[in-house]
Amino acid sequence: MPILSEISNLPPLEIAQNKKNIKAATKILSKELEELQLKMFAERKRSLLVILQGMDASGKGGTIRKVFKHVNPAGCSVRSFKKPSDEEMAHDFLWRIHQHAPPKGIIQLFDRSHYEDVLIQRVNKWIDEETVYNRFEQINNFEKLLQDTGCTVLKFYLHVSYDEQLVRLEERMTNPQKYWKHNAGDFEERQKWTQYMQAYEDVFAHCNKPEWHIIPSDKNWYKEYLIAQTMVHTLKSFDMQWPSLKK
Amino acid sequence: MPILSEISNLPPLEIAQNKKNIKAATKILSKELEELQLKMFAERKRSLLVILQGMDASGKGGTIRKVFKHVNPAGCSVRSFKKPSDEEMAHDFLWRIHQHAPPKGIIQLFDRSHYEDVLIQRVNKWIDEETVYNRFEQINNFEKLLQDTGCTVLKFYLHVSYDEQLVRLEERMTNPQKYWKHNAGDFEERQKWTQYMQAYEDVFAHCNKPEWHIIPSDKNWYKEYLIAQTMVHTLKSFDMQWPSLKK
Repeated sequence: MPILSEISNLPPLEIAQNKKNIKAATKILSKELEELQLKMFAERKRSLLVILQGMDASGKGGTIRKVFKHVNPAGCSVRSFKKPSDEEMAHDFLWRIHQHAPPKGIIQLFDRSHYEDVLIQRVNKWIDEETVYNRFEQINNFEKLLQDTGCTVLKFYLHVSYDEQLVRLEERMTNPQKYWKHNAGDFEERQKWTQYMQAYEDVFAHCNKPEWHIIPSDKNWYKEYLIAQTMVHTLKSFDMQWPSLKK
Repeated sequence: MPILSEISNLPPLEIAQNKKNIKAATKILSKELEELQLKMFAERKRSLLVILQGMDASGKGGTIRKVFKHVNPAGCSVRSFKKPSDEEMAHDFLWRIHQHAPPKGIIQLFDRSHYEDVLIQRVNKWIDEETVYNRFEQINNFEKLLQDTGCTVLKFYLHVSYDEQLVRLEERMTNPQKYWKHNAGDFEERQKWTQYMQAYEDVFAHCNKPEWHIIPSDKNWYKEYLIAQTMVHTLKSFDMQWPSLKK
């Protein structure tokens, strides 16, 4: 079980010195990702669910914009999970999630996910601890169902530091092109940083099958590189074949 | 684990002699059901999923028409699960099911269900045995999720005899008002009766939490009575309260 305070949010030094090469490598990976997705789309044998979690301003949106920008949108869909609607609240917490599980051939990106139901809800004590542990089990069963039926689940935690988050949240109040991202509530949630880290660590301990990829995210170029690399690695592991001509 | 061949499809003798009284009792139960459902709808604290399974012509449609005819349609919804569409087939087998899980306040009736994925699919060997056992577990996890989050699952198996089924299937070819129900494929599936009974027994053995209600269904008036009774009993056990006036 990873202790987040012991994990760096920055790239290792030798990598930091290599920023230019890393950015070039990401471009190549992004191109590879495009080709692999097309093959997956043609083959229609399996699907891929990519879960992006992280604190506010950890760069979930930026990841989608940068890493997946070349991917054919017909084969890649994005769903952002915000505060549940009244209709969603009237169902179990996985009901709205399951609807967006990807069909075969498709990559589905989740900007936040069912993990919010054991993060923001837990930290704010909207649910009791028994419910949290029930949900861990329910999440594990749900992800097992997906994995067992041909949908690979890839989970990324974008690990941003407390200080870097402040820089980014403040930029949203000073840079007119980022005004739209500003949300006063983010500063409130920031006050509960320690509780969030604890809740994330608990998620990693109890819902780590499939495993979490913890991505140092204080530098966007490094974060994008790591995610692109994991994406390509995962898609390659599928050992896909172009379908033969139908008779 | 019930052995179906040892269970009667007919009402016990003392009940059969009491047909008139039973039919009157069903009417009262049906009225009670209507009132209980309204209270459930007003309370919006829990939901009820009613699964109807049974061989062709076992009377699933008739049950819905007769037992639930007085229930407010705003609080009671019916979903019939037939051959999956291409889109449904591209997802896990519970994807299309989960979408129709009832929100709080609602009774959802399933005419066939996810159990077909371990019945018709198994009997016809469209899936291997490992998949069957995986699905048993996946179904159990799914129903546990529903039950743990306020949705009671009520499962009825409508137990019709081999001989009575033939009478009913043949009536569909002679009674013009029943022509629309005729389907030549039903006679084909009928040839696999023993395999179906075995598959049902296995379902009862492996997916019996919540338990199955096995309903003798050769006599419709008795079947309707038993189902109405179980419905009323279940709704009463919810111990519902009319909501107090909102301030």
